[in-house]
Formats: sequence, C-alpha cells, structure tokens
Amino acid sequence: MKLAILGFGTIGGGVYEIVNHRKSPALMDTEVVKILDLPRNKDKCDIIVCDIKDITEDETIDVVVETMGGIHPAYEFIMDCLTHKKHVVTANKAVVAAHMEDFLKAAKENGVEFRFEASTGGGIPWLAAIQKARRIDEIQSFYGIFNGTTNYILDSMNTQNTGFSEALLNAQKLGYAEANPSADIDGFDVQNKVVISSALSFDTKINMKDFPCYTMSTISFEDILYLKSKNQMIKYIGEATVKDGAYEAFVMPNVLSASSLEANVPSNFNLISLYGETIGELKFYGQGAGKLPTANAIVEDVLDIKEGMTYGDISLDKEISYSDTLQDHAYLIRTNKMYLEDIVDHVDHVGANYYVSTKPISTKEFTAFATRVLEENPQAMIAKYKN
Amino acid sequence: MKLAILGFGTIGGGVYEIVNHRKSPALMDTEVVKILDLPRNKDKCDIIVCDIKDITEDETIDVVVETMGGIHPAYEFIMDCLTHKKHVVTANKAVVAAHMEDFLKAAKENGVEFRFEASTGGGIPWLAAIQKARRIDEIQSFYGIFNGTTNYILDSMNTQNTGFSEALLNAQKLGYAEANPSADIDGFDVQNKVVISSALSFDTKINMKDFPCYTMSTISFEDILYLKSKNQMIKYIGEATVKDGAYEAFVMPNVLSASSLEANVPSNFNLISLYGETIGELKFYGQGAGKLPTANAIVEDVLDIKEGMTYGDISLDKEISYSDTLQDHAYLIRTNKMYLEDIVDHVDHVGANYYVSTKPISTKEFTAFATRVLEENPQAMIAKYKN
Repeated sequence: MKLAILGFGTIGGGVYEIVNHRKSPALMDTEVVKILDLPRNKDKCDIIVCDIKDITEDETIDVVVETMGGIHPAYEFIMDCLTHKKHVVTANKAVVAAHMEDFLKAAKENGVEFRFEASTGGGIPWLAAIQKARRIDEIQSFYGIFNGTTNYILDSMNTQNTGFSEALLNAQKLGYAEANPSADIDGFDVQNKVVISSALSFDTKINMKDFPCYTMSTISFEDILYLKSKNQMIKYIGEATVKDGAYEAFVMPNVLSASSLEANVPSNFNLISLYGETIGELKFYGQGAGKLPTANAIVEDVLDIKEGMTYGDISLDKEISYSDTLQDHAYLIRTNKMYLEDIVDHVDHVGANYYVSTKPISTKEFTAFATRVLEENPQAMIAKYKN
Repeated sequence: MKLAILGFGTIGGGVYEIVNHRKSPALMDTEVVKILDLPRNKDKCDIIVCDIKDITEDETIDVVVETMGGIHPAYEFIMDCLTHKKHVVTANKAVVAAHMEDFLKAAKENGVEFRFEASTGGGIPWLAAIQKARRIDEIQSFYGIFNGTTNYILDSMNTQNTGFSEALLNAQKLGYAEANPSADIDGFDVQNKVVISSALSFDTKINMKDFPCYTMSTISFEDILYLKSKNQMIKYIGEATVKDGAYEAFVMPNVLSASSLEANVPSNFNLISLYGETIGELKFYGQGAGKLPTANAIVEDVLDIKEGMTYGDISLDKEISYSDTLQDHAYLIRTNKMYLEDIVDHVDHVGANYYVSTKPISTKEFTAFATRVLEENPQAMIAKYKN
C-alpha cells in the first residue's frame, strides 16, 4: 500500500518514521512515497513534492494522510484526494469538526474511506471505542479530559505550586502549548473534539455555537488552593449527554472530587469516558497529542483501511436538538463583585468571592447569571460541578 | 447468525438478554437458538437442551458461546464445538489460560475463530487493544488491577474503614466474591489473566508456576493506615515485562502513590495499562466482571466474527524465558518477627514490623527472603513498590 503525507511537521514526520523506518511486520508492504510540503523544505527529505496534483494524479497512491492542520487548504486538499479516489486519514480536528459531512459524503460517493481517529484523543483508540460500543449499546454520554495542554497547566498549578502564567510558559517551552494558546485554553480545541465524538456517539452533527464553552485561563492558583481545602480539584472538561431526543454539551472547568480518576490525571495526558447501556462506564487514558502517539493512531487507521476493518458507515442523520433545560447542574463561580441572588450562595475564602449554586439549576438559568458576571468581570472563573 | 450458549448462569443469561431481547440494529439477524444447561433448569427457558450433541450436531448453529466456567467439561465441549466447525467465544479465563494452544490449533485446523475478549478485563476491550497496538508496536509491559473483587475489598478498607474480613463479607453479600474467595484473593484469577495477556502481548505462553504470586488476604486495616500516613495506597496488581528476550511477571499487592490513577480506582472496577514503543502508555478502565459488561464483551466477539474483523492470527511461538534477575524492585513486608538483614530496613509503626528494601533488589534475592518470612509467619503481608 502506497501512502502520501500532506505536511511534514511533527505529526507528518512521525507517520513517515513509523511507516518507513520502524516497520513492524504489519507495515512490511506499506510505504510513504510522497510528502507534500513547501518548496523551502524541499531538502528535508528526498520524497517531497510541492504540488497537490503530484499526489492526486499519481495512481499508485492508495492513501493520503493529511497532517497540515487548519481549515484551508486542508479542506480543499482532502476533498480533492477523495474525489481522486484516494482513502484519506487525518488528525486535523478543526477541519473534521467543520466539514465531516462533506468528507463522509465524498468518500462514500467515491468508494473510499475517510478516517480521523487521531483527531480526537490523539493516541487513545477513542473513536474506535465509541463505534465498537455503538454496535451493541446506545451511548448515553461521554465525558473527560480531551486536551493535554490545559491538563499540563492545571497539573503544574496543583503539584508544582505555580501560577497560571508560569505554568503556561512552561507548557510553551516544552512544546505542549502554541505561541498563541487560545485554541487550547479557551476551549475551541475541545469544542471540536466534542463535536466529533458526538457525531460518532449520537449519529448527529451538534452545533458548537449552541452549547456553553468557558475558558480555563481564569483559573487561579488561589482557586486550586480553595478547592484543595475542600478535597477537590479542577480540570478542563468536554462532555455531551443525550436524553429523550435532546442533547446538552459543555466545555468548561469542572470541580471534581480529589479522589476521582480525572482529578489524578498527570501532565499532558487525556482521560475520556463513555457510558453505554450494557457496558457501563469505560475510560480510556493516554497521550492525547505528541508526535509518535498521534502518528500511531493515523497508522492504525491506515492499517484498518488496508485490512478492510470497519465498524460500519457513520451517519449524521439523527435529529437531536440542543436543550438548555435537559438536566440541572451545580456551578462554582469566583469573581470580584458581590452578588445577592437566590440561585447562589456566597462563600468568602481568603478575600475571594466564590458563588455556589444553592441547588442544581438549569443551564439556561446558569448561563443568564454567568453572562452577567462575565460582563462585569471578564476575569471571573466559571466552573461546573461534575454530575 | 445462529448462536448456542453453554451454561445459563449470570453471563449466559446476559448474552441471551443482549442478543435476543435488547437487539441493537447490528444484532437484528443474530439469534440465540439453543442453551445447554442441566435438566433441572429445563423450565428456565424454552430453548434449553441438555446434551452437547444437540448443539455440535446442529448444522444451523454458527457460533457457540461458552459461559460454564472451570476446566471440565468446558475444555471438552469447546474442543468438540471447534472440531464441529463452530466458532467459539468464551469468557472462561481458567480454561483459556490452561488450554489456549489446543483451542487456537483446533480453530485454525477447522477454519473457525476462537475468541476470548471477555476472559480478561470483562467489559474492557483489553485484549483487542493489545492486538491492535501490536500491529505497530512492540509491547514492553502491561500492568494493572485485573480483579474487581479484590479492588472492592481494598477500596472498602480504605474508604469505609472496614477490616479485611468485613470487606470480604460485604463483597460476598453483593455477589462480587464467591463463597470460596480463594481464586480472587490468593491471585489465581489474576494469574490466568496475566498468562492470557502475555500470550497476546508477547506471542508466548508464560508459565504461571514460574513467577511470584502472593495473596492479598493478609493486607490488614493497619497496613492501609500505615500507607495512608505515607500518602500511599495498596492495590492488588498483575503485571508482566519483556526485555532482552526474557520476561518477568508478578501477581501481588503493590504500594502506589495515593495520587496514581490505580490508587483511585473505586469499588469493583478494573484499570489495566499497556506500554508500547510509539503509543506510550494506554490505560483502560471499566467493569472487569458482572452480567451485562461481560456479556457485552462476548457479543462484541460474536459481531467481530460475523463481520470478519480480526487483528490476525495469535502466535505462541516466541521463546521467552522467565528471569528472576531481569530488573530490581523495592519491596514492603509486614510481619510479626524481627529480622536483621542487610537487604531490608526495619520500620516500627505502632508496634507493627515493616521491612522495606534498603535498595532495589532482584526477584531472586527477594523471593528467598519472602519465603523465609512466610515460613515463620504465613500471615505476613508481602508487597512490591510500583516501578
């Protein structure tokens, strides 16, 4: 089987290394034959080409691995490869979350596969786990730590007693965080992963503009200390639940018991759970990013295509609408202003104003309050208690 | 696809329920048509038969699910079904660990599949995870909580402040532990699972008589308190490592940091990890036993057979020999006698004698010491520090 890779960065380099140099017995007859990259990188490797046509029009190429990231030109290149009857495997969560429907349709029409295991959970076989569980069970919900960068920051704050900015700087030095860290710390990365996981879990395309997403960048060292005093820990969580034909989803900091598994996830690891009717709760832990783990997930997709292994077509046809009154939850807010409201209790902790819901409230009720708080103090810390 | 089930206990009943009554779309054309059970249970269900020939000689039956447990007559029945060209799926770890080679050979000769996902890790897709990882990586080691009964006991002792006997009694009341709990608490159950996981991880049949297995029944409430004072927790662990053509394996209590994921596994859940070259560490958590989770794993095997999904043949041909000097480890022993030895430091904690290795020592050196301790005090608590 002959492969081409689009992009020769960290992940593309990892795929090239695993397929052409590490060569497990299962990869003996698989080879990367072309890599698309910019002309200025031409001497990085002797199989670099600079025109997508060199790949789409090469009839010997069976599978194209897209590792460029971003929406454009990844979208156009993927569509081009699919219409040229190449299987496509990608790790690009942004383009998958935005254009999954187009890709699946084009793949079906052209009799090829479109796979994206590495887009969510990196090296964790998470999307395959959902699809496998779905053969028997309805998935009721999924939940977890989908982003390694933010987990690294929170873990540093908790175990190294550093503040947010110092932890972020360390994450950048280690290559875990981008120079512009917004996609990670403000939740867009996790939103994409929640959309992708929902598609496979619930057969539907959920709209990330509908559901609440709050940043984790306002979590302070004082918040960590306050929660420690209550034997709790805060983690950055993505989740979705389906019930009675409606769904809810959140991307936001969650307050957890210090003895929960999620609370104890170290460094930049991910931990993601699904809940199915007969299987109960399954949790999956591993490297959610990084060169070799992500490349490994891509190569697993390539091998599945080669060996004709599939859990069946992905459908996005189920009509499930977002509801902000599906379930009541409890929330925690820390801000610099005094509120006297029925729905929250005020807790003063070393001069900081914490607000805890007096009883579980609907997302609708909570969102209205949180919006007012954030208007008055954009640095407020907004979190949800784990169900 | 037509199924027969051998045994109509908890697990057999779960398979019948999922396949004939819950019926996900993937199971629409799959049906349990016969169940083998004792004559006295004939009126429990209208498809019960009492002679294995009613199943082996029924040409309409494609897959036989064995859920009887134990070695005999499970071994004979499984061989009989395979030689009659029925695919066989089993949850029976004892018979798989003892006779895997015969079963795989008979399946191959008769052109059918022999599957046993549910035998190890219950509802956790653990054996499939190993096989999937193996396509790309060498597995270097696996490690974890393979037994829910013992985890329930240790979790109760830790969180409910109960002694060992009370926790065991509760586990028996809840149906987690057998009337004779020895297979769980003395490690035979985990030994079987280590043998099975090793076969898939390392392509070899390891001999459970070779490697150390220590009971967890001597862990006392005082031990839990002693370790808590050091911010540690004790869990019952199975593990194996391969290095330079040799292996080591252990089934024994492990002392872990209180903030490790394993230390925080609640109730009767399992948490099992593998370590692969490029994928790094992957951990899998879920119900390691119980009616519907175990039945779910069996039905996943049935669906894989139906859909022709396989990670390839299992080989047991690699020659890897046990070594008791492969790696050095640190150990903890609590006993009632005073020892003055170079290899251990004595720690007196509220009148109990704890011994900790002065430096990591070989398994050979440790085993010699532990054997002497156990001869003088069979109630000594023998544990290993997590690497």
